[in-house]
Amino acid sequence: MFDKYYSERIKSTPSSFVREILKVTQKPEIISFAGGLPNPISFPQEELKVSMNRIADTFGAKIYQYSTTLGLDSLRQYIVDRYKKIWGMDITIDNVIITTGSQQALDLLGKVFINENDNVMVELPSYLGLLQVFSMYKANFVQTKLNDDGLDIKELKKTLKTYKPKAAYLIPNFQNPTGLTYTKENREKVFECIKDEDMILIQDDPYGELRFEKGERIPYIGLNQSAKNVYLGSFSKIVTPGMRLGYIIADKEIIKMLETAKQASDLHSNIFGQYMIADYLLNNDLDKHIEKIIKLYKTQATAMVSAMEKYFPKDVKFTRPKGGMFTWVTLKEGTDVMELFDKAIKRKVAFVPGHPFYVKQENINTLRLNYTNADENTIVTGIKSLAEALNEI
Amino acid sequence: MFDKYYSERIKSTPSSFVREILKVTQKPEIISFAGGLPNPISFPQEELKVSMNRIADTFGAKIYQYSTTLGLDSLRQYIVDRYKKIWGMDITIDNVIITTGSQQALDLLGKVFINENDNVMVELPSYLGLLQVFSMYKANFVQTKLNDDGLDIKELKKTLKTYKPKAAYLIPNFQNPTGLTYTKENREKVFECIKDEDMILIQDDPYGELRFEKGERIPYIGLNQSAKNVYLGSFSKIVTPGMRLGYIIADKEIIKMLETAKQASDLHSNIFGQYMIADYLLNNDLDKHIEKIIKLYKTQATAMVSAMEKYFPKDVKFTRPKGGMFTWVTLKEGTDVMELFDKAIKRKVAFVPGHPFYVKQENINTLRLNYTNADENTIVTGIKSLAEALNEI
Repeated sequence: MFDKYYSERIKSTPSSFVREILKVTQKPEIISFAGGLPNPISFPQEELKVSMNRIADTFGAKIYQYSTTLGLDSLRQYIVDRYKKIWGMDITIDNVIITTGSQQALDLLGKVFINENDNVMVELPSYLGLLQVFSMYKANFVQTKLNDDGLDIKELKKTLKTYKPKAAYLIPNFQNPTGLTYTKENREKVFECIKDEDMILIQDDPYGELRFEKGERIPYIGLNQSAKNVYLGSFSKIVTPGMRLGYIIADKEIIKMLETAKQASDLHSNIFGQYMIADYLLNNDLDKHIEKIIKLYKTQATAMVSAMEKYFPKDVKFTRPKGGMFTWVTLKEGTDVMELFDKAIKRKVAFVPGHPFYVKQENINTLRLNYTNADENTIVTGIKSLAEALNEI
Repeated sequence: MFDKYYSERIKSTPSSFVREILKVTQKPEIISFAGGLPNPISFPQEELKVSMNRIADTFGAKIYQYSTTLGLDSLRQYIVDRYKKIWGMDITIDNVIITTGSQQALDLLGKVFINENDNVMVELPSYLGLLQVFSMYKANFVQTKLNDDGLDIKELKKTLKTYKPKAAYLIPNFQNPTGLTYTKENREKVFECIKDEDMILIQDDPYGELRFEKGERIPYIGLNQSAKNVYLGSFSKIVTPGMRLGYIIADKEIIKMLETAKQASDLHSNIFGQYMIADYLLNNDLDKHIEKIIKLYKTQATAMVSAMEKYFPKDVKFTRPKGGMFTWVTLKEGTDVMELFDKAIKRKVAFVPGHPFYVKQENINTLRLNYTNADENTIVTGIKSLAEALNEI
């Protein structure tokens, strides 16, 4: 009815495949591996209740008033301190902007960097939320193959040479959708390839804290070696997603441009939530809290991988995540994943077919499974049903 | 340093004149009429503290989890009920989307409707936040003169004929920056002019509830007569701006497009805040609370207008607002408002020069004064100082 009024931008934005899928999968009788929700155990509810009352008593009207676009200083300082400690970054709060979740971070980066037809390198497959929002800015995506150890270096070199991308968007830790993590060696090779390119490197890292094995964290690509590096982080998977708080760490000049974009986008992020999360972080042991989440997710991931090993046909491949929230399943070549989806739904188990993670959505034989929102028994039951559906196609 | 990476969009976005101005005006010794902050009396702090504890006890993990893009059903239903009661609108929650403040509502409308060079009609002067965000989508603004009684009908007809705008953005109640309100007669004439045009009419209404005189509200332009009408509202001026909660009421088909745009922009607005504000609204008498705000703002507005009448030179004109938060001052033609600004700052009083409210920022002899954030004595002192500065130029 209003077709002639709509922008080209919105008309070319991929329709929300996942939203439609989720409608089917939300029926109560369905075991759903389709979502991407953190387990409620990751919300420190009691501590947050203490924090909300404390900020109300301490700061009064300030927690309800308009605030600054860049975000609450104490929250930005907490981020600075954490990244200094973990990564040795030489940054101040001028390198940090608070965003309305990581999704807004992506929108702001699109606003600041992307002209129509700019080439943007992303992984194959890539995060659907990035594909969706950069589509709005008419980016030309170049998908570069992701292997078990990280980016395919040969393809990367070809991509750089052929397309000279203006920006790259990568998720090096426990990637969404695949659950894969770039090795240290791969990261070093990637940086060697890109360091002299005129390219902004965006590294999104919502899951990096959810590493199942203890031991050293793997540094970001080109960590502390490039002013063109842009880092994204989020409190969604380690404190609460409902509060919509993420952040961008970048060169001060880039932060200023992002500030202008954010002022036009929503003036500032919910300041009550910023006070509340800052209070929580400053008065609790975040690492100890994260340990609890990791323990649970590791158990759930192990249950899913073991069940897949036990019940799936041998020609079905899947990733063995070392952290994060997802595993990625690849069916025999030529198999139509939508056929599997229909059979799976009949057996009351659901997943996200691979389509929305690809720019070219043809011959898709992959799917994403989430394990963070079901207990071990449910996971085993669901995987058994999925195995039965697999045996039917 | 990163110039070659930035988008044309961000490079063409007006630099934040107001942000620079506000830096000067935020020194403690300055009496500032430059801001646009609601008085903290408008934040029902005690009631909100009750609500935050009640939602934590009632809803548990839900207030911290990911949620739906359109917003919390109970909050959308409250809006439906209020607009049905006040305006007789025939709507359901499918006509409502919650936004991260009204600023995001504008961003989403830009995403959904504006192609590069689309003509958009706005008032002369218009709200700077709209000019900023629609600039990002490269709208071609046509500013149409605003008189004391509303849009200049002759200019409106000319604008419609010459430019065939795809959309119009108007603030019919207590406009920002002028404080002016369209009369009932003017609204009817405007609707008569536009009703057969192929044009989306966006009516922004953040201040409509802050009407100083009791009596009938003036209906929106074309109320309940056009599917092309889009209404914006906000809880910022009547409950709390820090929570960043606004909304759009529109045809269901338009809401669906806005949903896609919002999903790409920030997935959803802070759900904790939505539960909290919904709980507040359902358990308190909003109209009684608004009365308190009105009583205060009316006193402040009266103090400012009286002081201007008493102290300002006779060749200086100003609006006499019947609601909202601002008055608009017009200096003698040919006067440079920036010269006044410098002299005013020396006398420790500040305002927003008219520039950011115009697309063509030449020969600006206007300024905006806010009266909601100073007590009567401070208002009189500030206006006296401003009058002295006026006598110097």
